Amino acid sequence: MTARNLFLLPGDGIGPEAMGEVRKIIAYMNEAMNAGFVTDEGLVGGSAYDAHGTAISEADMQKALAADAVLFGAVGGPKWDSVPYEVRPEAGLLRLRKDLQLFANLRPAICYPALASASSLKPELVEGLDILIIRELTGGVYFGEPKEIIDLGNGQKRGIDTQVYDTYEIERIAGVAFEMARTRQNRVCSMEKRNVMKSGVLWNQVVTETHKAKYSDVQLEHMLADAGGMQLVRQPKQFDVIVTDNLFGDMLSDVAAMLTGSLGMLPSASLGAPDGKTGKRKALYEPVHGSAPDIAGKGIANPIAMIASFAMCLRYSFNLVKEADDLEKAIANVLDKGIRTGDIMADGARQVGTAEMGDAILAEF
Amino acid sequence: MTARNLFLLPGDGIGPEAMGEVRKIIAYMNEAMNAGFVTDEGLVGGSAYDAHGTAISEADMQKALAADAVLFGAVGGPKWDSVPYEVRPEAGLLRLRKDLQLFANLRPAICYPALASASSLKPELVEGLDILIIRELTGGVYFGEPKEIIDLGNGQKRGIDTQVYDTYEIERIAGVAFEMARTRQNRVCSMEKRNVMKSGVLWNQVVTETHKAKYSDVQLEHMLADAGGMQLVRQPKQFDVIVTDNLFGDMLSDVAAMLTGSLGMLPSASLGAPDGKTGKRKALYEPVHGSAPDIAGKGIANPIAMIASFAMCLRYSFNLVKEADDLEKAIANVLDKGIRTGDIMADGARQVGTAEMGDAILAEF
Ligand SMILES: CC(C)[C@H](C(=O)O)[C@@H](O)C(=O)O
Ligand SMILES: CC(C)[C@H](C(=O)O)[C@@H](O)C(=O)O
Repeated sequence: MTARNLFLLPGDGIGPEAMGEVRKIIAYMNEAMNAGFVTDEGLVGGSAYDAHGTAISEADMQKALAADAVLFGAVGGPKWDSVPYEVRPEAGLLRLRKDLQLFANLRPAICYPALASASSLKPELVEGLDILIIRELTGGVYFGEPKEIIDLGNGQKRGIDTQVYDTYEIERIAGVAFEMARTRQNRVCSMEKRNVMKSGVLWNQVVTETHKAKYSDVQLEHMLADAGGMQLVRQPKQFDVIVTDNLFGDMLSDVAAMLTGSLGMLPSASLGAPDGKTGKRKALYEPVHGSAPDIAGKGIANPIAMIASFAMCLRYSFNLVKEADDLEKAIANVLDKGIRTGDIMADGARQVGTAEMGDAILAEF
Repeated sequence: MTARNLFLLPGDGIGPEAMGEVRKIIAYMNEAMNAGFVTDEGLVGGSAYDAHGTAISEADMQKALAADAVLFGAVGGPKWDSVPYEVRPEAGLLRLRKDLQLFANLRPAICYPALASASSLKPELVEGLDILIIRELTGGVYFGEPKEIIDLGNGQKRGIDTQVYDTYEIERIAGVAFEMARTRQNRVCSMEKRNVMKSGVLWNQVVTETHKAKYSDVQLEHMLADAGGMQLVRQPKQFDVIVTDNLFGDMLSDVAAMLTGSLGMLPSASLGAPDGKTGKRKALYEPVHGSAPDIAGKGIANPIAMIASFAMCLRYSFNLVKEADDLEKAIANVLDKGIRTGDIMADGARQVGTAEMGDAILAEF
C-alpha cells in the first residue's frame, strides 16, 4: 500500500489542541487498520509569523503542495492584530487556498439531533437540518486586483477591492454543486446579487447554462443573496445544496453554521480540481470555527469540528467512505450519550475537556 | 406655514396598495392637524419601464430632487425579470439613492412585542430587540467602476465589480452612527472584513479615527462582518447601533429584519447630508420588504412597514417627533389588539386586509 501523506497545520489558539485529538485517531487507524498515514507538520498563521515573520513559510507551502491532504486548525488572535496586512495570520490560509487552487469549499451545516435545542432557532426549524454550502474559494473579491489603499492627498485615502469572476470559475464550482446534489436531495439553490452586481449577472447566466448543458436532472433555483440570508433564518430546511461566491459564501455559511447550534462542531473541506492523470484532488480540511484565543491552552476546546473535518478528509481525499461514516457516527453517539465540552453543555450532560472528548470519540470509533 | 412637499413613488407589486394607506394618513393629517402636506406622484421600477422604457423618468427624478421627502413603495417582479440590466426595476431605486446622495440608510430592526412569537428565533432572544443598522448606501460595490462583463473570447466572459470607499464616505457614515448611538444606548459596532478586504482595512481605520476625534464618549466595537452575521443570529440583543458598508449592510440588515419576525413591518430611511444653508436633508423612506408580486393586487398586503416608513419621514424630514411617536404607538396598539394581516396572523387574532389595517391604525392615531 502506498503511503497516505497528511500535512498538519495546527495553527494558533485552540488549533493545536483540536489537532491533538485527530492525531490520536490517525495513530489508531495506522495501528488498528493499517491505514498507512504518514504525517508531517508545519506552522501557519500567528505561530508561523512568530517563527519566520510570514504567515506560512515557503518550505511549509512546498509540503502542503506535495501532501495528499492538508489538515488545518485555525489561525489568528489578538497577539497578531497589528502585524502588517501582508503577513497577518489569515494570509497563510488565503495563500494555501490560492496556491493549492482549492476552488471548492464544502461547508455542511448539519444539526446534530442531540444539539437541536442549542440553536437560537426554534428546535422544529433546525431538527434534521442538513444543508451543504458550496462556496467558491479562489476567486471573487478575496483575490481580484486592484486591491489596495491609495493616498489621494488632502487626508483622503481610497480603499479598493475588486470582485472578478470568469466563466470557467463559475462553471467548475456549479459543476461541483450539481454533482454533490445528485448524491443528496438533488436540489441546488444558487445565490448572487445579479440585481446590483455584474459578476452576479454572469454567475446567474453561467450556472443556468451549466445546468442546462449537463445537469438538467437536478432541480435548480436562483435566489438573491440577501433574500437567501433571510430564508436561511426563516426556513433553513428548504435548502439542500447552496452554491455561491467567495464573499457571500463566507457570510452565508457562517449564518447557516450558527443556525445549527453546532458551530463548534462543523467541518469543512476545500478541494481542487481532479488531476488530469491521477484523478487526485488537492485538499485542505478545516473546522469552521476560529482560533478562540480566549479559551486556548486550557484543554477545554471542542475538538469535534476538527475530527469531523478529518472524517471529510477520509471521504474526499482517500475514499475511505466506511471509515468516514464510522467516525461521524462515533461523534453522534458520543453526543447522544450526553458527553459534552463546555461550549455545548446542556442540563444533565457530562462536561469533559478536549482530550476526554477525543478519547470518547475514539472509543466509539 | 410653508408647504411640506412629498413625492410618492408607489412602484410595483404591493407598493401601490401599501402607499394607499399612507395617503389616508396624509389626508387626515392635512385635515385634522393642518399639516400642510402637498403630494405629487410618479412611477418607478417596472411600472416606469412599462410607461417610459426606463426605471425612472427624468421628469420624476427632477421631482424627487425637488421634494422635501420621497416615499417609496417597492420595485420589481417576474414580469420584468428579463428586461435589460440598465433599465431593470432596481435601477430606479439605485439612481434615486445615488442622485439624491442618500448615503445614510437607517434600518431599525425592532421586535414588536405582539410579534415576538412569529420570529424563527426563540422568543427570549428577540423580545425587546431594538437594533439600528446604519448602512452606507451610495458607495462600495454597488457603484464602483469598473462594473462590467467583458468578453474574453473562447466562450469566456469576465464579470467585474469594484468595491471603492474613500475616507470622507466612511467618516460621514460613521458620524451618523455615532450621533444616532448618542440618542440610544450609546454603543456602535462597526462591521467589515478587514482580514480580506483593503476597503475593510480603511473602513476600520477611519471609523476608529472618527471615534477618537469626535465621539470618544460612545462605546465602539469592531467585528468581522461574517462573525457579525453569526452574532446577529446567536445573541441579537447584544447590539445597539451597527454601522457597515453597502453590501454587508444589505445582507446583515435583511438577516436582522428576519430575526425580528416582523419583516413585513420594518421601515427604513435613506438620508443625505444636511444642506449647508437650510440644514435640510434629502430623504427617501421605504419599507424593507419587497414588492411581493405573488400577493399584489389582492388587498391583503401588510401596509405597516410603509406606514412606519412614513413615521420615520415625520421624524427625520419634518421634525414632527410627537406625530411620529403617535403613529408608531398606533401601530403597536393595533397589533396589541390582535388585528393582523395574513403575513402576521396568529391564533386568536382577527385577520384583516390592507385597507382595514390602514383604517385601524388611523383610528388609533
Ligand atoms: C479567516 C478568514 C480569512 C476566512 C475567510 O474570510 O474566508 C474565514 O472567515 C473563513 O470563512 O474561512
Ligand atoms: C432592490 C435592491 C437593489 C436593494 C439593494 O440591494 O440595496 C434591496 O435589496 C435593499 O436592501 O434595499
